[in-house]
Amino acid sequence: MGSLSALFAPESVAVVGATDREGSVGRAILTNLRDDFEGRIVPVNPSRESVLGFDCYPDVSSVPDGPPDLAVIVVPPHVAVDAVEEAGEAGVENVVVITAGFSETGSEGAARERELVDVAETYDMALVGPNSLGVMSTPVGMNATFGPENAQDGSLSFMSQSGAFITAVLDWANDQDIGFKDVVSLGNEAVVDETDLIEHWGDDPDTDVIIGYLEGIDDGQEFIRTAREVTDDTPIVLVKSGRTDAGAQAASSHTGSIAGSDEAYEAGLEQAGVQRVETVQELFDYARALSGQPLPDRDDVAVVTNAGGPGVMATDAIGDSSLSLASFSDDTIDALQESLPDEANVYNPVDVIGDADIDRFRAAIDTALSDDGVGAAVVVSAPTAVLGFDELADAVVDLQAKHDKPVVACLMGGESTESAADRLREGGIPNYFDPARGVRSLDALSGYREVRDGSVDEPAQFDVDRERAREILTRAEDRGDNRLGVEAMDLLDAYGIPTPAGDVVDSPEDAVAVAHEVDGPVVMKIVSPDILHKSDIGGVKVGVENEDVYDAFEDLVTRARNYQPDADILGVQVQEMVDLDDGTETIVGMNRDPQFGPLVLFGLGGIFVEVIEDTTVRVAPLGRDEAEAMVDDIDAAPLLRGARGRTPADEDAIVETIQRLSQLVTDFPAILELDINPLVAGPDGVQAVDIRLTVDTEEL
Amino acid sequence: MGSLSALFAPESVAVVGATDREGSVGRAILTNLRDDFEGRIVPVNPSRESVLGFDCYPDVSSVPDGPPDLAVIVVPPHVAVDAVEEAGEAGVENVVVITAGFSETGSEGAARERELVDVAETYDMALVGPNSLGVMSTPVGMNATFGPENAQDGSLSFMSQSGAFITAVLDWANDQDIGFKDVVSLGNEAVVDETDLIEHWGDDPDTDVIIGYLEGIDDGQEFIRTAREVTDDTPIVLVKSGRTDAGAQAASSHTGSIAGSDEAYEAGLEQAGVQRVETVQELFDYARALSGQPLPDRDDVAVVTNAGGPGVMATDAIGDSSLSLASFSDDTIDALQESLPDEANVYNPVDVIGDADIDRFRAAIDTALSDDGVGAAVVVSAPTAVLGFDELADAVVDLQAKHDKPVVACLMGGESTESAADRLREGGIPNYFDPARGVRSLDALSGYREVRDGSVDEPAQFDVDRERAREILTRAEDRGDNRLGVEAMDLLDAYGIPTPAGDVVDSPEDAVAVAHEVDGPVVMKIVSPDILHKSDIGGVKVGVENEDVYDAFEDLVTRARNYQPDADILGVQVQEMVDLDDGTETIVGMNRDPQFGPLVLFGLGGIFVEVIEDTTVRVAPLGRDEAEAMVDDIDAAPLLRGARGRTPADEDAIVETIQRLSQLVTDFPAILELDINPLVAGPDGVQAVDIRLTVDTEEL
Repeated sequence: MGSLSALFAPESVAVVGATDREGSVGRAILTNLRDDFEGRIVPVNPSRESVLGFDCYPDVSSVPDGPPDLAVIVVPPHVAVDAVEEAGEAGVENVVVITAGFSETGSEGAARERELVDVAETYDMALVGPNSLGVMSTPVGMNATFGPENAQDGSLSFMSQSGAFITAVLDWANDQDIGFKDVVSLGNEAVVDETDLIEHWGDDPDTDVIIGYLEGIDDGQEFIRTAREVTDDTPIVLVKSGRTDAGAQAASSHTGSIAGSDEAYEAGLEQAGVQRVETVQELFDYARALSGQPLPDRDDVAVVTNAGGPGVMATDAIGDSSLSLASFSDDTIDALQESLPDEANVYNPVDVIGDADIDRFRAAIDTALSDDGVGAAVVVSAPTAVLGFDELADAVVDLQAKHDKPVVACLMGGESTESAADRLREGGIPNYFDPARGVRSLDALSGYREVRDGSVDEPAQFDVDRERAREILTRAEDRGDNRLGVEAMDLLDAYGIPTPAGDVVDSPEDAVAVAHEVDGPVVMKIVSPDILHKSDIGGVKVGVENEDVYDAFEDLVTRARNYQPDADILGVQVQEMVDLDDGTETIVGMNRDPQFGPLVLFGLGGIFVEVIEDTTVRVAPLGRDEAEAMVDDIDAAPLLRGARGRTPADEDAIVETIQRLSQLVTDFPAILELDINPLVAGPDGVQAVDIRLTVDTEEL
Repeated sequence: MGSLSALFAPESVAVVGATDREGSVGRAILTNLRDDFEGRIVPVNPSRESVLGFDCYPDVSSVPDGPPDLAVIVVPPHVAVDAVEEAGEAGVENVVVITAGFSETGSEGAARERELVDVAETYDMALVGPNSLGVMSTPVGMNATFGPENAQDGSLSFMSQSGAFITAVLDWANDQDIGFKDVVSLGNEAVVDETDLIEHWGDDPDTDVIIGYLEGIDDGQEFIRTAREVTDDTPIVLVKSGRTDAGAQAASSHTGSIAGSDEAYEAGLEQAGVQRVETVQELFDYARALSGQPLPDRDDVAVVTNAGGPGVMATDAIGDSSLSLASFSDDTIDALQESLPDEANVYNPVDVIGDADIDRFRAAIDTALSDDGVGAAVVVSAPTAVLGFDELADAVVDLQAKHDKPVVACLMGGESTESAADRLREGGIPNYFDPARGVRSLDALSGYREVRDGSVDEPAQFDVDRERAREILTRAEDRGDNRLGVEAMDLLDAYGIPTPAGDVVDSPEDAVAVAHEVDGPVVMKIVSPDILHKSDIGGVKVGVENEDVYDAFEDLVTRARNYQPDADILGVQVQEMVDLDDGTETIVGMNRDPQFGPLVLFGLGGIFVEVIEDTTVRVAPLGRDEAEAMVDDIDAAPLLRGARGRTPADEDAIVETIQRLSQLVTDFPAILELDINPLVAGPDGVQAVDIRLTVDTEEL
């Protein structure tokens, strides 16, 4: 599949299945194209001579002057694959399949969709759909959809896995004067998917912001890689629905996608630099701010208002956000004191009070934006007799341009704000009734600045013993059991994750030998995949002195045999005692998500924290900065850092362990799940005390 | 102060300080009154004969036919108190003081406000303001404000501590056809405050919902008592701003109110049955649903949509809320299967798919609402060629009335939805573009049903030894130190909170005697308000056997004297060892909020949970159900109930301890802060192991 450029800027579009029958999809598309499309429109239908005044051709190959740049397929499902093949043979490189009746309808449809994919691959075609509403591109006036509304010109490019969502959004957006560059109804995504589109739009100079409605992402790892590059230049804002269990089930029944965990989406989208929102309102609030306003240099916000109460609401919203209320410089305070009456508040939030005219209001905004400690401003105004919203809007537009800092307006009123809102829109300034929405828009800008300025560390490649790791994993295969326990502690050793001294042994003599190599008394545990609750059967002995090790071995094995005669006993683990007084129990784990692959988890251990679920996840492979961020994420992180009089743990060692685990699970897709619990983090490093993992032996 | 009825339904209104000077507040009010007021309008101004065509009188007492029901005061601040006094003398019972320049301006103004309060008390007047925008009441057409907009008729009564907020909201609400019964700008609340208004509106048959914007509540305890009764019949929805630290500071500078903690507001408003929201949008979304829709019998919601994606968004929103997605009965599924095409989804969320006409859509809504397991419905529609929004709106209105279950609509479009939205509004059905807003509106209904149906237990009055408690508290006074520690353990005993056996003694002989009365070895601790970190100086001995108690006493005292020669040593605590193996450490505590009074805290103990702050608070006094709810609130509550193989704790004993502490701190306002940490909760009860408190000895 080549570039998608011709998909969005074709010089000619064929509509295969074009007809003038009232109410038909073919007629709707042709009519929509006729409205504004700058290029050539070519109906294809063997049973017509002309359709809606356009010359009609029996097949794509008979279209004169070479193949059309784009073919839109609206023929019934049983002939749709043939139609695409004909187009491919004729040399068409871009196809939009409107026709439904593919994988969304069951096994017959799924088979048909596989044929479609084969054909597209054979002819190297970019294919959108099937089961798509179509595509739009405003620079060439192309509306190749059967929806009731065309998009207005703009700089947002918009993709959706729900066609109805596009119809609804365009109906609304046209009233709000929100414009688009391209609009794509993704349909079943047999070929072109969300990753292809963001990659294309990332290179598109006419797309300022990429927005989308998604219910699933097919290949999470590829999406992250692509989006990370795209978001260096172009912000991406997405609604990913199916967030909740009920929603995920509904999404799965709607699009047939297998639901990955929302935890994985949340982590993956953040790692990809995507800003995730939950509602249509947020989607467009974010998009509007990102397309119209510069990014703030700093997160300190000035509030300038003529209404005390709404000023407090704006301040609350700043407190809720990642932004902060700016502290003004002495010069700013002096200047405000000079220009404002005594009853005004010259500290942030600035209250110019209700009798402020435009000059007083303008001066205050100007002064606030002049302060080097101010990164952005929110201007809040209630209606008053002495101030016109229009003149305030003009002042805000001017002052934003003068200072080149982001500004949002909250003109609090109804119809009385309309012409002012138009002026603000033309000046690129978002305007909302609710101060909280204004503040969240600034927060979106700040969030994108973090994405754009942040660099992502490449995953470190530690010097590890991969072959030894493979051998250890293979033991599961030899044993016919895909679960491994402490007998696989060496796996961690092979990847440089520290473990206490010790070994798994199968004789009392070996137990004694190992115990002698270890300083001080040892912990001894029965090792068996069949005995889950070792403590309950007396299968664990703590603080065993060297002279007692022999008897302890025999006792442990006897107890295990008595408890469960058919248990597969792999031996006894003899392990150095780990000092828990100075250490904090943590957990490092991993499971595999169907979309995003390996998901690494970090959290503090101990039952309290486990019940409270104070954990965080990231998609692997991950770099040092991401591993560090995982430690930061934990609410109980202060305990690792010496809160409550504790000895600070060796945080570097934790971070390195997370990275090494990331490398391990990336190197071995066969590892389905893995838990190191606890990983004891002390002042002088970490020790992985216990491990459990599940292996897919067929992947080895 | 009598009833507020005449304030909102006066037969005559005097405007004291009326004038026809352009731009004056007096003229603005008179003009606003003239527009619609049904009663008599009486300007009062000694220097005019008539104002705007109304006969003008030199003072209120010269108004013929008895005193006016309401006087609105707009004279300058230095004569405003006299004007109110004249009105009082003349027999006026209700006054609105528009005039500013009182407590909001400094000490001179504050003195003036105290005079105002004295005058109001002398004449038993209901006084709104000063520094108020005024009041409105639509049934009598009264707009006694100087704002630019009058309210439309409706059933919402609205109070605000910000006049600008009223101006802004009315400007917007009038465009949205949102109507009001009464509107009050509270101003400085010298006399009439938020509690008086909710009490009045609670008895007002024309008020369906009370809404408000508040920055502070003066007397939290009285507010809770009043609101609890009001919300049995009338929902209250409030924005309480100053939620965040920055916002609270801004609110304090705006209204001069002392900021209580937001934690106290959050708890107090919930205990009062108030629904708290954060934005203007939520305020009116809630108000609209509560005034137009019945309450749901159950929280199971049906979603009926012609658009898969938006249906998933609605389902996500249900997952985010306290509602749940309804499971349909077999009959419902059968009926849906019969009326819908094969490609439709008959399970909830019901997808009637994009080609549904009104008959199909209507049948599906009707079927879903007929299901006894469905408490409410969300109808979601994208624009399609085969369905008119108007006909869908009519169907929704009909079906809502037929089934008498709450229904919200999400007609997803722009201007194309406008006439349909009007029809829905007339039928009382909320309509939003965003499915999430529709779902939150249903959630508001469900939340209010919980408030209305819930009963609040009266605080239990346990049989306690109040006199003994007073004696113990008085010790602080005798000692000249307002901090008490374990020497006050008897305080808990006096209020029936179990403590380990033991006592504080001041001789080794007494120590031995106490130790002999206690089973097993004891814990011994030095008792001194001056030694905070007892362990650090070896001031704690654990597991002391009887024969070692004498020496241990002397050793503890010696160490303390060496460590801090000037420390006030109260003795040594000799205490029974508490078994922590089967027990869970919890914390029960209390501090005093300036607005709400005693705030009781519960949480699990131990450093992990303290760092994570898994705690909850309630305003005392509290009943058994509230104490139970506190235990439920804790994320780690499962640990108390036997999660992770733990022995379940005696939850009743915890709940009783919370109640007894509530009684203690209610009985003794002198207790400023108190912490029982830990309260060890085991299977056979609780034991308060340690206590710290601070006493205001002047309050005793």
